[in-house]
Amino acid sequence: MNAPTTTPHLLPRVNQRPVPAALLQALQAQFGERCSTAQVVREQHGRDESSFDVPPPGAVVFARSTAEVAQVLQLAAQHNTPVIPFGVGTSLEGHLLAVEGGISLDVSQMNQVLSINAEDLTVTVQPGVTRKQLNEAVKSTGLFFPIDPGADATIGGMSATRASGTNAVRYGTMRENVLALEVVTASGAVIRTGTQAKKSSAGYDLTRLLVGSEGTLGVITEVTVKLYPLPEAVMAATCSFATLADAVNTTIQIIQLGVPIARCELLDANTVRVVNQHSKLSLREGAMLLMEFHGSPAGVQEQVETVQAIAREHGGETFEWAATPEERTRLWTARHNAYFAGVQSRPGCKAITTDACVPISRLAEALLDSVTEAQAAGIPYFLVGHVGDGNFHMGYLIDPAIPAERETAERLNHQLVARALRLGGTCTGEHGVGLHKMDFLESETGTGAVDMMRAIKRALDPQNILNPGKIFAL
Amino acid sequence: MNAPTTTPHLLPRVNQRPVPAALLQALQAQFGERCSTAQVVREQHGRDESSFDVPPPGAVVFARSTAEVAQVLQLAAQHNTPVIPFGVGTSLEGHLLAVEGGISLDVSQMNQVLSINAEDLTVTVQPGVTRKQLNEAVKSTGLFFPIDPGADATIGGMSATRASGTNAVRYGTMRENVLALEVVTASGAVIRTGTQAKKSSAGYDLTRLLVGSEGTLGVITEVTVKLYPLPEAVMAATCSFATLADAVNTTIQIIQLGVPIARCELLDANTVRVVNQHSKLSLREGAMLLMEFHGSPAGVQEQVETVQAIAREHGGETFEWAATPEERTRLWTARHNAYFAGVQSRPGCKAITTDACVPISRLAEALLDSVTEAQAAGIPYFLVGHVGDGNFHMGYLIDPAIPAERETAERLNHQLVARALRLGGTCTGEHGVGLHKMDFLESETGTGAVDMMRAIKRALDPQNILNPGKIFAL
Repeated sequence: MNAPTTTPHLLPRVNQRPVPAALLQALQAQFGERCSTAQVVREQHGRDESSFDVPPPGAVVFARSTAEVAQVLQLAAQHNTPVIPFGVGTSLEGHLLAVEGGISLDVSQMNQVLSINAEDLTVTVQPGVTRKQLNEAVKSTGLFFPIDPGADATIGGMSATRASGTNAVRYGTMRENVLALEVVTASGAVIRTGTQAKKSSAGYDLTRLLVGSEGTLGVITEVTVKLYPLPEAVMAATCSFATLADAVNTTIQIIQLGVPIARCELLDANTVRVVNQHSKLSLREGAMLLMEFHGSPAGVQEQVETVQAIAREHGGETFEWAATPEERTRLWTARHNAYFAGVQSRPGCKAITTDACVPISRLAEALLDSVTEAQAAGIPYFLVGHVGDGNFHMGYLIDPAIPAERETAERLNHQLVARALRLGGTCTGEHGVGLHKMDFLESETGTGAVDMMRAIKRALDPQNILNPGKIFAL
Repeated sequence: MNAPTTTPHLLPRVNQRPVPAALLQALQAQFGERCSTAQVVREQHGRDESSFDVPPPGAVVFARSTAEVAQVLQLAAQHNTPVIPFGVGTSLEGHLLAVEGGISLDVSQMNQVLSINAEDLTVTVQPGVTRKQLNEAVKSTGLFFPIDPGADATIGGMSATRASGTNAVRYGTMRENVLALEVVTASGAVIRTGTQAKKSSAGYDLTRLLVGSEGTLGVITEVTVKLYPLPEAVMAATCSFATLADAVNTTIQIIQLGVPIARCELLDANTVRVVNQHSKLSLREGAMLLMEFHGSPAGVQEQVETVQAIAREHGGETFEWAATPEERTRLWTARHNAYFAGVQSRPGCKAITTDACVPISRLAEALLDSVTEAQAAGIPYFLVGHVGDGNFHMGYLIDPAIPAERETAERLNHQLVARALRLGGTCTGEHGVGLHKMDFLESETGTGAVDMMRAIKRALDPQNILNPGKIFAL
């Protein structure tokens, strides 16, 4: 790990090329109204949840099949023009922004659940299926798909960013849960990676190379993911603490003892307050752990007793139970909306979101020092954390019209990431690199590893047309 | 999936180049006695547990540090000469064989446990540390490392082949358990992948690209793996069945119900017999499941009750318990030695080992039809399976002096793999491709995906000096 010595990365490098007229003509001939250059459509596809302001792509194509995705890639390759895969636009680090111009390839209409293989605990979907849609589709099987970023993201987008969420502490991230992919390459070839078998040693692990590649190595057109039996017993509770440190230290001990907790989420007092406002809840305002336990009735009972004892040692209040499925849903919906609650707490603001993840033993230092710095800077923020994984997010709420606020937020993020790297962690636990963390990636893994990524990118996309300008500069 | 239409891959293509004298001289100047051209040393490094007979490498270098590995790679690159990483020689598919000549780079002396991070449940080791050595080193922490191929393989070799073993059904394979690597590239550069954090979305997943790359993309010089708390309660049992089908169908139901069983292993009656002989046990001779349950005392009790009920439905006998830790160790040591027990049951034989892995719902068809074919062919074999993962191994015991036996075994393996691929499975669950499964890989994943692997290989090893001739032909 090298210390990040570059200045904070404030604004993306933009170098847009126009979409060649001949390419537009070919796409319009092929896709008709599903190839749009309307300003409003382009603008919808030219922003995500990041705070960056970049002119939109030159055109948007709505694909309905793998064959159509392949056609777009073949045409784009002929005309040497960038293609940016697009799901529902919930990414946070500028992944979707057309910094080099080109075509936004919207796969949200590829939203069929292709096959539910309940007896193998897998499901195969098109990339535009969202996580909620997927869970709705498999509901009757008694199985569920646990990966749950805050937004109702698409499975394609979640694969591309190696997303996780509140259940990852028990069920893993997209890294552990994608079994197989269908992918269209930069030249428009259709390939398949992985099989339906649970494990394999058959050659390079292309599945996991493509998961997290942020649309820079191929366009995902089909995903097979693992499902899990709905637990026999589920219990969810909140627990308030006098200080953030108490909540964090409780978490550390839960994990070190190997308690198979299903969810272990942190909110600070201010975030509890904005979540209460946004979701019309009355959670006790204070540092809080939101927890869920899965298992057999006896197994859940054991986990709860262990965790209650740990929490008591750290001064935790008595658990408040979300007793019914409806109450649980309400609680977790509120947690998932914490990001939006935070953003709405300051009208007109943009959030600059951090995403550090550190080894669990270093979580207290990583998180508490970051809070101290944010408080000293006087910038409004919210704080949520998948703390069971050592992962937390601060959202600095800036007024985009005030450059000094952006600078302060970026400086705080820079300090936070530098600390996480010093502690053996990563600059991004689940959001990806996009535009925002390109410099941090190099600090984290070193030039040698990024050079290896560049070599792979050049080999698989020699024209650099797949979501160019993301993850690293070529 | 394409049907494997090529003829069985009977013998590897061998095209050995001599090691240039100038390279030998440079290595000898650098490494002294640790660079050997002695016939006996070369022959030790020129064979693994596969049945292939290939002339040995031109020289063997024993490295003691990452810097020395980098020196070997730099010299080899200068002299355009292959380098084959070597741990303890337990691979099964010809991974170590010098089909294009070159240097065997023995890292078994790089066998230090570098840091035990008990509070983060990780450990960092040099590549020559074996799995037993690792578990001995972490014993006092109350943690353990679950991945256990039959042999006492090195962590470097296990990473390189994406190995698993009997615990993978609960704890995953090397794919899920390697957190970070240090690797020397084809040009002799030292890079690091991954961090000590549990999850990350920071760029391409080089860790998982290198895990399973069989020494063809880099030489692993350091590995960080996950550890797990020793379970509070452990119970191990065997259960005999009237037929193989009963044992397999019991397994399928255990997995489909989501029982978190820690080990679920199958032996057929003949294999129980040879294991009894080899390990001086008196297991009941019949199709048998060997199982282990991990958890809290109550959790283990629940699992046992569920599994006993399932087994009873399929006519399983009463469980025989391995009550003490010593009895458990004896049972699992016998299971780990099943391969050697099988080989020793036919003096002078070589084993041609299969490694298919299929979705759990197709396990009965995949396994039982393969047994029927082997019995019809009249060739001696043993049968073991990590059946909880849908993975099983048949070892055809051939007399290497009788070509017809090898042909029969290869034909049976070919049929078995073709069936596994038809059922959505893989040609190799955990042994890797090596030389033996190159044609199968192409059938399994298609030319497009293998072409993507080739492009990556060419980009990262343009001279093709890292373990050339393995996984795919370039």
